[in-house]
Amino acid sequence: MNMTFAEHPTAATRATPMRPDTRPSFILALSSPNRRGIVAAITAILCEDEGDITEAHQYGDEQTDRFFMRIVFSFDDHAAKLERLKQRLADVAGRFGMEWTVDDRRHKHRVMLLVSKFDHCLVDLLYRWRTGELPVEITAIVSNHPLQTFAHLELAGIPFHHLPVTAATKAAQEEGLRELIDQTSTQLVVLARYMQVFSDEMSAALSGRCINIHHSFLPGFKGAKPYHQAHERGVKLIGATAHYVTGDLDEGPIIEQGVERISHIDTADELVRKGRDIERWVLARAIRNHVEHRVFLNGKTTVVLQD
Amino acid sequence: MNMTFAEHPTAATRATPMRPDTRPSFILALSSPNRRGIVAAITAILCEDEGDITEAHQYGDEQTDRFFMRIVFSFDDHAAKLERLKQRLADVAGRFGMEWTVDDRRHKHRVMLLVSKFDHCLVDLLYRWRTGELPVEITAIVSNHPLQTFAHLELAGIPFHHLPVTAATKAAQEEGLRELIDQTSTQLVVLARYMQVFSDEMSAALSGRCINIHHSFLPGFKGAKPYHQAHERGVKLIGATAHYVTGDLDEGPIIEQGVERISHIDTADELVRKGRDIERWVLARAIRNHVEHRVFLNGKTTVVLQD
Amino acid sequence: MNMTFAEHPTAATRATPMRPDTRPSFILALSSPNRRGIVAAITAILCEDEGDITEAHQYGDEQTDRFFMRIVFSFDDHAAKLERLKQRLADVAGRFGMEWTVDDRRHKHRVMLLVSKFDHCLVDLLYRWRTGELPVEITAIVSNHPLQTFAHLELAGIPFHHLPVTAATKAAQEEGLRELIDQTSTQLVVLARYMQVFSDEMSAALSGRCINIHHSFLPGFKGAKPYHQAHERGVKLIGATAHYVTGDLDEGPIIEQGVERISHIDTADELVRKGRDIERWVLARAIRNHVEHRVFLNGKTTVVLQD
Amino acid sequence: MNMTFAEHPTAATRATPMRPDTRPSFILALSSPNRRGIVAAITAILCEDEGDITEAHQYGDEQTDRFFMRIVFSFDDHAAKLERLKQRLADVAGRFGMEWTVDDRRHKHRVMLLVSKFDHCLVDLLYRWRTGELPVEITAIVSNHPLQTFAHLELAGIPFHHLPVTAATKAAQEEGLRELIDQTSTQLVVLARYMQVFSDEMSAALSGRCINIHHSFLPGFKGAKPYHQAHERGVKLIGATAHYVTGDLDEGPIIEQGVERISHIDTADELVRKGRDIERWVLARAIRNHVEHRVFLNGKTTVVLQD
Repeated sequence: MNMTFAEHPTAATRATPMRPDTRPSFILALSSPNRRGIVAAITAILCEDEGDITEAHQYGDEQTDRFFMRIVFSFDDHAAKLERLKQRLADVAGRFGMEWTVDDRRHKHRVMLLVSKFDHCLVDLLYRWRTGELPVEITAIVSNHPLQTFAHLELAGIPFHHLPVTAATKAAQEEGLRELIDQTSTQLVVLARYMQVFSDEMSAALSGRCINIHHSFLPGFKGAKPYHQAHERGVKLIGATAHYVTGDLDEGPIIEQGVERISHIDTADELVRKGRDIERWVLARAIRNHVEHRVFLNGKTTVVLQD
Repeated sequence: MNMTFAEHPTAATRATPMRPDTRPSFILALSSPNRRGIVAAITAILCEDEGDITEAHQYGDEQTDRFFMRIVFSFDDHAAKLERLKQRLADVAGRFGMEWTVDDRRHKHRVMLLVSKFDHCLVDLLYRWRTGELPVEITAIVSNHPLQTFAHLELAGIPFHHLPVTAATKAAQEEGLRELIDQTSTQLVVLARYMQVFSDEMSAALSGRCINIHHSFLPGFKGAKPYHQAHERGVKLIGATAHYVTGDLDEGPIIEQGVERISHIDTADELVRKGRDIERWVLARAIRNHVEHRVFLNGKTTVVLQD
Repeated sequence: MNMTFAEHPTAATRATPMRPDTRPSFILALSSPNRRGIVAAITAILCEDEGDITEAHQYGDEQTDRFFMRIVFSFDDHAAKLERLKQRLADVAGRFGMEWTVDDRRHKHRVMLLVSKFDHCLVDLLYRWRTGELPVEITAIVSNHPLQTFAHLELAGIPFHHLPVTAATKAAQEEGLRELIDQTSTQLVVLARYMQVFSDEMSAALSGRCINIHHSFLPGFKGAKPYHQAHERGVKLIGATAHYVTGDLDEGPIIEQGVERISHIDTADELVRKGRDIERWVLARAIRNHVEHRVFLNGKTTVVLQD
Repeated sequence: MNMTFAEHPTAATRATPMRPDTRPSFILALSSPNRRGIVAAITAILCEDEGDITEAHQYGDEQTDRFFMRIVFSFDDHAAKLERLKQRLADVAGRFGMEWTVDDRRHKHRVMLLVSKFDHCLVDLLYRWRTGELPVEITAIVSNHPLQTFAHLELAGIPFHHLPVTAATKAAQEEGLRELIDQTSTQLVVLARYMQVFSDEMSAALSGRCINIHHSFLPGFKGAKPYHQAHERGVKLIGATAHYVTGDLDEGPIIEQGVERISHIDTADELVRKGRDIERWVLARAIRNHVEHRVFLNGKTTVVLQD
């Protein structure tokens, strides 16, 4: 974070609409089988322990019979009290078969950025990070291209790792990458136009914590050169898709999509240019929702509890 | 869910994402001063009385210090049990200073449509009503123009009232209108391009239950002939605004807005044409959100708890 | 055009930005191999014959090496002069290998509407036709369902034909349809949610003059039940596509597309409802552009010369 | 097309849909009183001199009785021939009372960027410039804040000028600015969130060649703190407007506008954040259209001949 912007009037992380409460703020995110009484059980615990709910959103999916909830609450900055709260939540969670996390909002999500030579998403994410609009800690930038490819960028001291890859070295490169993820305590891996396909093992290892930006409006134009495919087909809108990476290429659960209008006059190169604006917007929005614990996996799709 | 529409091919009322629960569904909508424990208190009552929450959304506004909540729950179709639940909610409401309603979703909102000679919104609302997509009961269509203005429309037996108005008869006409509203137990009055300005008394009497569609992107181009104003100014997008009617012309709380791109080639008449598509979409959406109890007044603005 | 609306203040056909010229207006639409001097040759003829250009738009496609031009011009209402102009244009056309048409704007395009039981596009097109916003003559409404399916609609005297179809009668039904198209001098056939797939012969016979609305953002979700496919895949936007019908199902040249944002909460039925609004808007816009001679085939895609 | 960018992977200047013609490309932009024969006269000259039209677009405004035309043509790289062509165009221009320019596309537009402390538009423009997507020469970056405010940016050798301003020094500062504009042969001045209001003299001196980005959807929310005004009013969409600077604050001819959907949950600070994305997109697009000679003044509005 740049000092200049620390007091920047517009450096606003997602506004928590809370009372002027000096207590720290936490996010409880949970998913579970859909059963009666979950909301009451959870909110009762928070009320009794004097957690103060400032945002709450839930959704029950009839088809998958799953239930999803996100609660933001303020709470005393007292370790023992927090521990007790978590214990009580754990008890309830056991009863309902929940998966759940409680996250202290003062601790920024640790995010690693992977990039090949197209740097528009990287540039955009660095800008949003620098202004504080994207509330993350960038653990590293990793590329299969050398540092000089990004010589024009101010990396602000973020560690850069050059991990080249060939068919022969792919397994070793992925192993190096996984070690780096572990060593840096990275929570989320972002493929910010990283033009390498992960092995199934790698995809599985990063399940639910690796976001890719695909440069088409999926499921249209999977695979390589989607803008050229779009130009061939003569579509009137192009798009971009942010999704979780799975072993099934371009088939992972979709987090966010965006489109822009084009016309016959746009060549494939022109689509590439226009697409850059959509890609960076869609990816930034997907990351933001992920690190704010708004995104839940729901079978092959996602539930995004936006306000 | 209405039986009549169950077999209609295009009928889809707002999908309640609930478990296949044959019990009726209710909407609790409340607003109150923002105080700790509201969610817990409400959900505890529902849980104890075996109300089954299927949707829930809340929002606390720091600036106005108001709290808003909408809960959809299924409940036994048993009058005495429902009465007891309402009594318990009333007790809590008193403690927190809440305004609240509980609405049985099987009872359709009673809506009156007012229209002058431009009928595009009327045609659109009738279509959405007929297919069941707008889950309302239309109590009457009222116009300051005679029935023959709408001779080309199939009014499907909805009562039509011709209430002409001049400067001299305005007070009497409004009185007639208010009587009609009362007699028909109308809950919501929709000005579907009704080109008459209500008196302050009339506006006050319908506070919070009268929606107007203004044919501009407010606050731009208030008053008469907004599309012509927009053409003069050379804007590149035009819009429409659905808002609650207040004594302050075109200044009421905004419920929904939409825009469409235009260009230099569009004459004022062309803006009128393009605007019709936005107006009907924006008005239909505002009505839908209102009758689903998603819209809350919050000072001079609205809170719209959409999913 | 309906008499009632002839004096309707907003009944505006596409505004021709011309000088207050009482002479009739014509549209010249041409496509040809891309060669130097086409514009000069055409405009010189118009200038010499005192045709007054009020709109002009051209596009040369490098990839297909095709050139497309649309010119709106006013011209004296004098048959012999018009004949001479057309002769001169024909001479130039021969030289450049052009395909071309000159259309008198006072003659409305003759359009036939085909529909199955979902009537939202039909209702919308009839409304736009009635207000004069869609400047066409409707030659007939044809359905594989009987008239009573549309009993709630005011068909305003437009001939209705019930042409039921089964696997066994398909060939005969298509023959009947083609006869009807010929007898009514229909220029454009619109599949306004007509849920029958044409035979290859039928598609070929109507090449370039049959528009279908497909209820997905093609090329995503081709074939049956696209909204259900979209729901399964968990996309965050749904769309609709208007395209020319070809023998290759859902692969015809795209004329117009539109999308709307959805979320996890939308069931497949809800997508069907939201999709209706997009479908009718996209189809109306495609028809409008077609009858105004703005749409040109360009290999497997279209060039749409919009202003 | 610039050699430097020919090998840049993401470089795509606006695709000229021309035949593979190695001759240089020129843009003819003209506006004039609307009279018969202009198109023919111009295209005849181009044809005779072997200029090869690759794009053409015209528009005649009935209300202002003005005519606007933009033609892209390829032409031999031969100074004497070009001079003769210009002479012939000048003759025609005199006859029709035209204002016109012919611009060699190999010569990039010279643009100066003015900025205060909010740097999101600056960062975005620098990125688009670096990738070649914005085909301009940046003559200087000027700020009323010192260089260290932008210490985190890679200015790539672009001259930076700190021109502080107070009420007392305003006249002198503007004079310094005008000298700098002259010395650097700047053609277009961009106020990329430059939070100073120009004097009438300065506005007049830069008439038609100074673009400002205002952070609201004009004419709504003129003046200071528009996002705060928008929050107070409770609008459901916010926007940004790029316009030419005139002596009449926020009333200059609009070039481009964009909007984004917001909701009750967005605080004023959140609107500021969301607005940044719209502002940078709208400003970039306005600049691009200006330097490609697509924007024409038409009274208090603009004509933008986009393809």
